[in-house]
Amino acid sequence: MNNAENNILSDYIDGKLHEECGVFGAYSIENEDVTASIYYGLYALQHRGQESCGIAVSDTNGPKGRVNSCKGMGLVNDVFDENNLEKLGGNIGVGHVRYSTAGASCIENTQPLVINYVKGTLAVTHNGNLTNVAELRDELSRTGAIFQTTVDSEVIAYVIARERINTRNVEEAAKNAMMKLKGAYSIVMMSPKKLIGCRDPFGFRPLCIGKRENTYFFASETCALDSVDAEFIRDVIPGEIVTIDKNGICSDTSLCTEKAAKCIFEYIYFARPDSYVDGVSVYSSRIMAGRILAQQHPVEADVVIGVPDSGSAAAMGFALESGIQYGTGFIKNSYIGRTFIKPKQSVRESAVKIKLNVIKEVVKGKRVVMIDDSIVRGTTSERIVRMLKNAGATEVHVRISSPPFLHPCYFGTDVPSCDQLIAANNTIDEICQMLGADSLGYLDGERLSELVEGDCGYCEACFSGKYAVEPPKEN
Amino acid sequence: MNNAENNILSDYIDGKLHEECGVFGAYSIENEDVTASIYYGLYALQHRGQESCGIAVSDTNGPKGRVNSCKGMGLVNDVFDENNLEKLGGNIGVGHVRYSTAGASCIENTQPLVINYVKGTLAVTHNGNLTNVAELRDELSRTGAIFQTTVDSEVIAYVIARERINTRNVEEAAKNAMMKLKGAYSIVMMSPKKLIGCRDPFGFRPLCIGKRENTYFFASETCALDSVDAEFIRDVIPGEIVTIDKNGICSDTSLCTEKAAKCIFEYIYFARPDSYVDGVSVYSSRIMAGRILAQQHPVEADVVIGVPDSGSAAAMGFALESGIQYGTGFIKNSYIGRTFIKPKQSVRESAVKIKLNVIKEVVKGKRVVMIDDSIVRGTTSERIVRMLKNAGATEVHVRISSPPFLHPCYFGTDVPSCDQLIAANNTIDEICQMLGADSLGYLDGERLSELVEGDCGYCEACFSGKYAVEPPKEN
Amino acid sequence: MNNAENNILSDYIDGKLHEECGVFGAYSIENEDVTASIYYGLYALQHRGQESCGIAVSDTNGPKGRVNSCKGMGLVNDVFDENNLEKLGGNIGVGHVRYSTAGASCIENTQPLVINYVKGTLAVTHNGNLTNVAELRDELSRTGAIFQTTVDSEVIAYVIARERINTRNVEEAAKNAMMKLKGAYSIVMMSPKKLIGCRDPFGFRPLCIGKRENTYFFASETCALDSVDAEFIRDVIPGEIVTIDKNGICSDTSLCTEKAAKCIFEYIYFARPDSYVDGVSVYSSRIMAGRILAQQHPVEADVVIGVPDSGSAAAMGFALESGIQYGTGFIKNSYIGRTFIKPKQSVRESAVKIKLNVIKEVVKGKRVVMIDDSIVRGTTSERIVRMLKNAGATEVHVRISSPPFLHPCYFGTDVPSCDQLIAANNTIDEICQMLGADSLGYLDGERLSELVEGDCGYCEACFSGKYAVEPPKEN
Amino acid sequence: MNNAENNILSDYIDGKLHEECGVFGAYSIENEDVTASIYYGLYALQHRGQESCGIAVSDTNGPKGRVNSCKGMGLVNDVFDENNLEKLGGNIGVGHVRYSTAGASCIENTQPLVINYVKGTLAVTHNGNLTNVAELRDELSRTGAIFQTTVDSEVIAYVIARERINTRNVEEAAKNAMMKLKGAYSIVMMSPKKLIGCRDPFGFRPLCIGKRENTYFFASETCALDSVDAEFIRDVIPGEIVTIDKNGICSDTSLCTEKAAKCIFEYIYFARPDSYVDGVSVYSSRIMAGRILAQQHPVEADVVIGVPDSGSAAAMGFALESGIQYGTGFIKNSYIGRTFIKPKQSVRESAVKIKLNVIKEVVKGKRVVMIDDSIVRGTTSERIVRMLKNAGATEVHVRISSPPFLHPCYFGTDVPSCDQLIAANNTIDEICQMLGADSLGYLDGERLSELVEGDCGYCEACFSGKYAVEPPKEN
Repeated sequence: MNNAENNILSDYIDGKLHEECGVFGAYSIENEDVTASIYYGLYALQHRGQESCGIAVSDTNGPKGRVNSCKGMGLVNDVFDENNLEKLGGNIGVGHVRYSTAGASCIENTQPLVINYVKGTLAVTHNGNLTNVAELRDELSRTGAIFQTTVDSEVIAYVIARERINTRNVEEAAKNAMMKLKGAYSIVMMSPKKLIGCRDPFGFRPLCIGKRENTYFFASETCALDSVDAEFIRDVIPGEIVTIDKNGICSDTSLCTEKAAKCIFEYIYFARPDSYVDGVSVYSSRIMAGRILAQQHPVEADVVIGVPDSGSAAAMGFALESGIQYGTGFIKNSYIGRTFIKPKQSVRESAVKIKLNVIKEVVKGKRVVMIDDSIVRGTTSERIVRMLKNAGATEVHVRISSPPFLHPCYFGTDVPSCDQLIAANNTIDEICQMLGADSLGYLDGERLSELVEGDCGYCEACFSGKYAVEPPKEN
Repeated sequence: MNNAENNILSDYIDGKLHEECGVFGAYSIENEDVTASIYYGLYALQHRGQESCGIAVSDTNGPKGRVNSCKGMGLVNDVFDENNLEKLGGNIGVGHVRYSTAGASCIENTQPLVINYVKGTLAVTHNGNLTNVAELRDELSRTGAIFQTTVDSEVIAYVIARERINTRNVEEAAKNAMMKLKGAYSIVMMSPKKLIGCRDPFGFRPLCIGKRENTYFFASETCALDSVDAEFIRDVIPGEIVTIDKNGICSDTSLCTEKAAKCIFEYIYFARPDSYVDGVSVYSSRIMAGRILAQQHPVEADVVIGVPDSGSAAAMGFALESGIQYGTGFIKNSYIGRTFIKPKQSVRESAVKIKLNVIKEVVKGKRVVMIDDSIVRGTTSERIVRMLKNAGATEVHVRISSPPFLHPCYFGTDVPSCDQLIAANNTIDEICQMLGADSLGYLDGERLSELVEGDCGYCEACFSGKYAVEPPKEN
Repeated sequence: MNNAENNILSDYIDGKLHEECGVFGAYSIENEDVTASIYYGLYALQHRGQESCGIAVSDTNGPKGRVNSCKGMGLVNDVFDENNLEKLGGNIGVGHVRYSTAGASCIENTQPLVINYVKGTLAVTHNGNLTNVAELRDELSRTGAIFQTTVDSEVIAYVIARERINTRNVEEAAKNAMMKLKGAYSIVMMSPKKLIGCRDPFGFRPLCIGKRENTYFFASETCALDSVDAEFIRDVIPGEIVTIDKNGICSDTSLCTEKAAKCIFEYIYFARPDSYVDGVSVYSSRIMAGRILAQQHPVEADVVIGVPDSGSAAAMGFALESGIQYGTGFIKNSYIGRTFIKPKQSVRESAVKIKLNVIKEVVKGKRVVMIDDSIVRGTTSERIVRMLKNAGATEVHVRISSPPFLHPCYFGTDVPSCDQLIAANNTIDEICQMLGADSLGYLDGERLSELVEGDCGYCEACFSGKYAVEPPKEN
Repeated sequence: MNNAENNILSDYIDGKLHEECGVFGAYSIENEDVTASIYYGLYALQHRGQESCGIAVSDTNGPKGRVNSCKGMGLVNDVFDENNLEKLGGNIGVGHVRYSTAGASCIENTQPLVINYVKGTLAVTHNGNLTNVAELRDELSRTGAIFQTTVDSEVIAYVIARERINTRNVEEAAKNAMMKLKGAYSIVMMSPKKLIGCRDPFGFRPLCIGKRENTYFFASETCALDSVDAEFIRDVIPGEIVTIDKNGICSDTSLCTEKAAKCIFEYIYFARPDSYVDGVSVYSSRIMAGRILAQQHPVEADVVIGVPDSGSAAAMGFALESGIQYGTGFIKNSYIGRTFIKPKQSVRESAVKIKLNVIKEVVKGKRVVMIDDSIVRGTTSERIVRMLKNAGATEVHVRISSPPFLHPCYFGTDVPSCDQLIAANNTIDEICQMLGADSLGYLDGERLSELVEGDCGYCEACFSGKYAVEPPKEN
């Protein structure tokens, strides 16, 4: 609806990539109401999707498969209030926050997707992007399927529903379905008696398990476990199907392989720094990126600052490694929300400033190292460099805590086409000039694995173009 | 959501049966925007459903099957405004107003149902109730279907989608589907290039065709054609499939039979008096009911009054036939809407009065004949009789312009179970006593066909128990 | 806000004058909560103002002068819900429904106006128009007053507040204030311990008193007393100040005179037909108007119909007197509300039909007498006559149940300037031609007093130009 | 309305003091629309008040004193959208963000307060608290004033309106009024042709002047000037009246004295770190506070962290001075808004975590210095210390960048009564124990003036109890 405008806005004021979703699930074996926990969990995952959100809950002891759900456009804070939360209620449930690319931002596409199928109800939430969704839709359509949304979750639900016919239980149907699904998916779903978490065999998107007393949780990130005081148990392994029922946790790892392609950008930008993703601290990973940058692209300077929010930790790492003083160069206005109106002519130049302002005292008369996590189109970076210079910085050295972004992502991030990627169309020197910076250095891809403590099972296709899963034919 | 409360309310303040829907469709062959026409058409059909409404439009010359829709809970007046209407727009479209029974009043169940299937998009609206919906759902589920709503429209769409695989066009798929659908349905649906209206072979629910210049319309009632200045063309025949495309109207009557079971209650209560249903004036039909009543249950009295709104015309007929003076006995408060709050203890007795007040001058010191269209539970009637007596009526003679309501309806009305029907559990004398009336007379069923000018193809199962279509097995 | 549009709309679809307000007050001496009663009372008065509404309540035993209020734009149904009504609560309160002329439709101008002054709080509601409001504002301003609204109530509150300084109690202050206020006003206001109703010495606007057990009520019309099951006690006399406190009713009639100028249009159009205004049944008054019309402007015809809602009773009177059959010629769509969007080009001609449709069966092939209460600009009447002819009426004889509307009203109705009044600028023959009617007859002003049972204390300045109170200097 | 709950919430999740308002004004001499600028300015001042906000604009060349305004409860983001902003529009205007103490959070109290008085319109915004408001209200009431709000702005407007009667212009009236107003006030107001900024003679609350091309601005903080790309001109001097009309800036300093009592807490906590208040960088001031703390309360530790947001800069200062490494210890969830629902039993312990989470990597196994700006009740601090220990901190040394908060503030902050101030009722050792900290150190008040570069004209009454202006008699 106001998606077009929002995209323009986000482009205008943040110019960042966006993750497409966050998922959360809870099951209290002792029949406590999990609605509030899901609500808090979604608050903690809000950074993964601000377009819409939803909660579906059920009662494993109630009328079979009776599901109450509430979904809406906007933030958790916009959609839920005491009235509608009170009408939910149940000891099992799933929740979702969503960000989408243009054209599909509408109430029909909100999740959880609650369906009724041959074995009762199923509420499905999903983070990622299938690469063979067009083929799956075609195939399903040709045998009479109807689609009411344009989200992958509906296709996933369909495939599971069809597999369920000849299988003994929903987790087996999920397994069969996973053999047909290609691409990135972390799924949390709820059947009348079970909470199930699945992660694609490459583990593109994160998914972890937590526990508080007799309540189990799935979450995209550990920060959501913290928000409900749950203890982190472990990550779901790529390819694993984890089923939680009244008897506790049960795991099926038969689809797991040695290969993994976990998204490296979760560490660089998407995940919250207080989260651990697949056992690695996001914060430490960013500190390391800053340290490497300082080694690869040293520079004489007076202060190191990070572009909020994700650049701060890398800036700290750069400072620690280089010995240059760390400073808080920017103030971010956190009150700007969905209805923010794009500046018109008269104040256009101040556009970025409304969202981000320089603390002049920190940069005035100084040689500044400015750390950011990535450059997409370059427009925002150019404005920020200009702001720093206007605020009195004598030099601005831009350091990017990831390699140049050269290739599209098909696995659940909001990626512009190649022709809009500044690094795909310009040399680093050209980009430096376009930004008006005094120097520019990107993290060298060869040391990327140090960010994740030497683990090699990471997807860095957006830098290297080497896709673990074949991209969709026509995109 | 607040459905439970609303039901209590409607029960409390009107105690009437409710139709389950109104449908409307429009197709401008000359590419005029039909959104406004659908909007006005739904206003005219609002009496057929006040719970939710929706519009879906498309452009037969635009990107294939691109559908814009807007749906919401509440009245046409609540759901649509300049902003969202402006975002619709197209030369073909369908609209729907909905009333539902308890438990299924939610945004998911609003219509039109817009789906994507093997041949593109389909937007479906439906008035009626299938009697074999449970069987159809089972069958579909067993072959992998998933359901996201609990409305019949979704089942109808599914059956059509499956039939479409092996048929040449959507109207042929619709025909095959109709052979599987049992019960009551008047369907208006839109494919990328066609507007289609179907009526079940018994014609339980009305559906008519209109035209204004180069725009064609389908509507549940002719009053909706009037509201868009369209000329009435004809009714859709029971069993007929009418397809409108750029070449005009095309009809398939191969499923039509001699038998029909058109709902008699459309004349008695549901339809607007300014409508013609299947060629018969609703107003004249009510006048006739009043005349028959006066012949069957004459009484000495000073004034005849009707309970608004449907009782007025019958009262006029009674007055004409009996020679007793007609009077306007009640004022109905038309401002009472969805958020009306049920009176608490202190003003409980005045409950009905807030909705309906007596004009004392009309009844004071008089012997009153009070005409109503039906008695469901009896509670409201009892309150109204009391109001009249309190206002000074010396006698109140109740006359009902339909036979006693004895059997449930499975064809698209809001029917309480038998044990709540006052006439199914009490003699007429008992009911008269319960109402506190001085006499009570129902229309004798034998002359019912006079209401529809002698046509015998009407369903009167709620009075007689003779169902044209086998009722659902377990309801 | 959307007032301009609304005015266009109301003009477009009803073309009627509008009353400016309805007032209601309640005081339970036995400490019952009166909030619900006020809410129901406002529902009953909704026809007197649909633009905004509000309720203010207090507790005569609670912290002195603590007032809870809730006000908003829209209908009672739009503004109040369970949540905000629950937050009110108290044994004394006042309520208001408002209609205003263009330019002043905003939240600031909603009532009750709750003020704090030298003696605590005062919540004021008002129906009418002061004719010396400009002078009073000037005078108050010159001594330092500030105004936050543009409603008369604020001026009234100011004058009372100033008078209160040197008086013993609020009713005395009210009396002194009334000596300064000129024009039309029926005031219901609440001080911490008293509920007070005042009516200007000419009694332009109605005000009555009711009682239910130990709760007293003020209301603009008796229908609001009915809605709370209260018994009508009596009307407030023109010039009277009625004070209700824990000891019951107390009256000050020292400002009462023999002269009165009660608005005759309350009977003809504004008030609900089930109300009694100053002892006269509104319904009977309209029946009488119809009878007189039949005597003054007889015509040969087949059916008499009334334009809803106010024309119906007069049509009945005409039918009774003339012996011509009465019929229900129109169906009014009561679902049309604030957000109704004005038809665009393609369906413009149907504009009136969306609001009002003809029952063709009643007028087809007939000579029709069409009764309406008044003609303001004439545009709507012209459309209605055309609708009747299009529906097959062979002749349309228009009869108006009031004299030609020739002069502006300064006493609380929504009056266009003289140049927009059709009767002020055309002869009756010309008007008849403009309407496309076959004949036209207005009620002769000489028999107007028969409508109010011979009482001569009525204002008919809009017909005669004889104003009981000098009009404002510059309007 | 939901104020009570909100207070509980803010207490629960932030436990901080709150400023009571932010003001903004704009006047384009060349007739550009200033609405958007005010809107952006309010975004930048949102941290000063999140309860309600409003904008009033006018056209100095339009109909005299015609003011358009839009106000509402909630954030700038909640209240304004394209629709309502579009309806504003004018070349002069004022804006306001508001926070209030319990009991007065309602639509009536939103600002700007737009009044009509003897010389036309006046739109008033105000930051601060009058100490003689009760006396002024009494005096005004006794001469007939009525009050419709409970905000100081209304009293200010009244006093100005009365003074205006015998003065030549509004700025002279403002000056006379200022001689009667006691306490803290920074006023920005707009008459039909002038924009006026006034600051009380002690300058409790900040106010500055900016300019962009031919548009002048007033703002509470310079960050709001940045947001509209305006150049900072200068601060309004305590006691100064600055008038901007078509001829530019004009100043009246006749009420200025040598004494000043500018709020020191603006530097410590209220203002944004990118603002300069009275010439001093807020950021630098906080760095200095951290340095002093490190000198006054040194401690052996591994990392220094700040409690967001205000503690970060002081933590940086502490780190710089002590040589201990700076770290980002916390992640703050910025998505939590007005409708956030307080955790119930099951997740109560995680309450603070939803708002604030620890980055475990930073504190695990470390001796931590935690810097916060103040302790009010102590509950939040206690929870935060516990969080750190649970996250693995071996020691937690709390350092507070201000002296103990011992005395109430009467000048525009949200201050609990003395009995709720932890430092007013406990020794530092006791507080340390209550917090569960390993040591606790407050900034020594003697060096406070170093925060503001040696300027002595600051109010530190909340620490010292020495009030520049006599407190209100009964509070």
